[in-house]
Amino acid sequence: MKKILRFVVVIGLFMLILQCSSRQAPQQRPEYALVIHGGAGTILKNNMPPEKEKEFRDALTTALRTGEKILATGGSSLDAVVATIRFMEDSPLFNAGKGAVFTHEGKNELDAALMNGADLNVGAVAGVTRVKNPIELARKVMENSPHVLFARDGAEAFAVEQGMELVDPNYFRIESRWHSLQKALEREKEKKSAFYRGTKNDNKFGTVGCVALDKMGNLAAGTSTGGMTNKRFGRIGDSPIVGAGTYASNKTCAVSATGWGEFFIRNVVAYDIAAMMEYKNFPVQKAAAAAIEKVGKMKASGGVIVLDKNGNIAMQFNSAGMFRGFSIAGEKPVVKIFGREE
Amino acid sequence: MKKILRFVVVIGLFMLILQCSSRQAPQQRPEYALVIHGGAGTILKNNMPPEKEKEFRDALTTALRTGEKILATGGSSLDAVVATIRFMEDSPLFNAGKGAVFTHEGKNELDAALMNGADLNVGAVAGVTRVKNPIELARKVMENSPHVLFARDGAEAFAVEQGMELVDPNYFRIESRWHSLQKALEREKEKKSAFYRGTKNDNKFGTVGCVALDKMGNLAAGTSTGGMTNKRFGRIGDSPIVGAGTYASNKTCAVSATGWGEFFIRNVVAYDIAAMMEYKNFPVQKAAAAAIEKVGKMKASGGVIVLDKNGNIAMQFNSAGMFRGFSIAGEKPVVKIFGREE
Repeated sequence: MKKILRFVVVIGLFMLILQCSSRQAPQQRPEYALVIHGGAGTILKNNMPPEKEKEFRDALTTALRTGEKILATGGSSLDAVVATIRFMEDSPLFNAGKGAVFTHEGKNELDAALMNGADLNVGAVAGVTRVKNPIELARKVMENSPHVLFARDGAEAFAVEQGMELVDPNYFRIESRWHSLQKALEREKEKKSAFYRGTKNDNKFGTVGCVALDKMGNLAAGTSTGGMTNKRFGRIGDSPIVGAGTYASNKTCAVSATGWGEFFIRNVVAYDIAAMMEYKNFPVQKAAAAAIEKVGKMKASGGVIVLDKNGNIAMQFNSAGMFRGFSIAGEKPVVKIFGREE
Repeated sequence: MKKILRFVVVIGLFMLILQCSSRQAPQQRPEYALVIHGGAGTILKNNMPPEKEKEFRDALTTALRTGEKILATGGSSLDAVVATIRFMEDSPLFNAGKGAVFTHEGKNELDAALMNGADLNVGAVAGVTRVKNPIELARKVMENSPHVLFARDGAEAFAVEQGMELVDPNYFRIESRWHSLQKALEREKEKKSAFYRGTKNDNKFGTVGCVALDKMGNLAAGTSTGGMTNKRFGRIGDSPIVGAGTYASNKTCAVSATGWGEFFIRNVVAYDIAAMMEYKNFPVQKAAAAAIEKVGKMKASGGVIVLDKNGNIAMQFNSAGMFRGFSIAGEKPVVKIFGREE
């Protein structure tokens, strides 16, 4: 009896509420498909005023339409992913580009990655502070350099060399994010810890991501983020790390993650999903669920969007909610925010 | 006939000479085991004076002994990996710590990572310029922060906060490495390309790495490097990227890679080996060979050392040689440099 009780308690401790939405594609591969996320976390209907909810639903719908338009007219999955993420970077609603969270030093340091499923090419940047659209810089790293990942001042020097649009760092500032940093700094002071650890209630990971399948059957994945409020020491999270926060291969699937980045890195979440599909023949939903379960076992939260080469979709998360949506050729786009939303 | 010819040519183009050494452990798990590498590349007996070869063999032997001593007396695999890599960082023979290659700007920017197979914890740093032993800073990131990866000036600020020994950047300078940069800059000028692409003959990836299994059955992996000669823009390679150049899990194996980092990132090499072992039940040698074959298909070169939870070893590379060695409880340590070395 004691053993059973202990088992129940352990399972109870480990399990976070598992949420998922999946969509089985029709027998035939759809002409094209696109999935997005705008971050996961403690996103509850009770805490969100209706007008805010509408703002988010509208932004997610516009993001989907931006990418869909490109795919419908025969554009590449890479183009669709970049344009969709660019729209979400420009929106102050999400923690990416304008509206990014603040570092300990009161700066906005942005990470982004882009991966091409056709040739496994990658471009990623970490810790840029003046590049208006980090996803576009990631694309330039992919296409105009033999390298994969550039960081901080180095990445910014590359942006300058590439003639990219630079902005004043103040461009990214949103008052509510600044306020979040001040609250975090206060809490840190009280705890006298060198590091601020988020609590369950303020874990909102506003990272944005997009995965797409184009008419040629090519997959692509992209992710962009401001990281975590109050991050320090040039901290790099999972978004720009291939295999952790971003992955795409035409062999299997395209993945973009959002959540407590450190745990997504340690579990190599994005590639793990692809590996389970390739090596264990898991369908996309089962692979996504297994990967998020591993993150949950470490008591961390977050989510992933996954699109496989046949157009099947998984949107899996273990937090209360995740801003998400998908669009499939010939169907009405779907946008969801909260858990268990029909 | 034409088809067959084309097939042969394609295979011929794709295939680089596959080299491997593996060692099947006895039925029972050995008390402890340690494997190291000091980089892979165009390492040929014809091009290496005997006294230089002796220097390398001596250094590799001392490195093995350094770690073995710790494991034999019941120390942890983490301690053994850090001490072994620290020794190789201090040796000017290898491209890590003292003796690192130079960046385009004539600096030494160092990357390192450490992973604990027991709890999947990780510490990594990228682009530090004044930390004498980057592997020790990686350990501090793992143990004294909730984060995984710190970059450049940020990582250095963390080192200062942790009271680490900082050195004048000149400490890392070795004349032969400086000369390599000058040669690369000249070649770049001739080619009028913004990026220097290594040629087959000067691809030497001197990264160092160590994987260990201790008496408690815990695996650990570590990697440290100066990256690639003439690297620019804060380029981060595979060494500090979990799943690419470094990985360890008690479930499967510990891996450290060396080679053309971009291709190890794109193929998520280190975790791919673990995934093939876990999901496909591949023995360690088969998994290592399959992963390096993928890198070879992209016409890139390099190698990996892998140690599984039962003490089985793989040292796989597709370059002419790889500095490597292993030490198993109760057996004489083995050191090798060239391909097909008995």
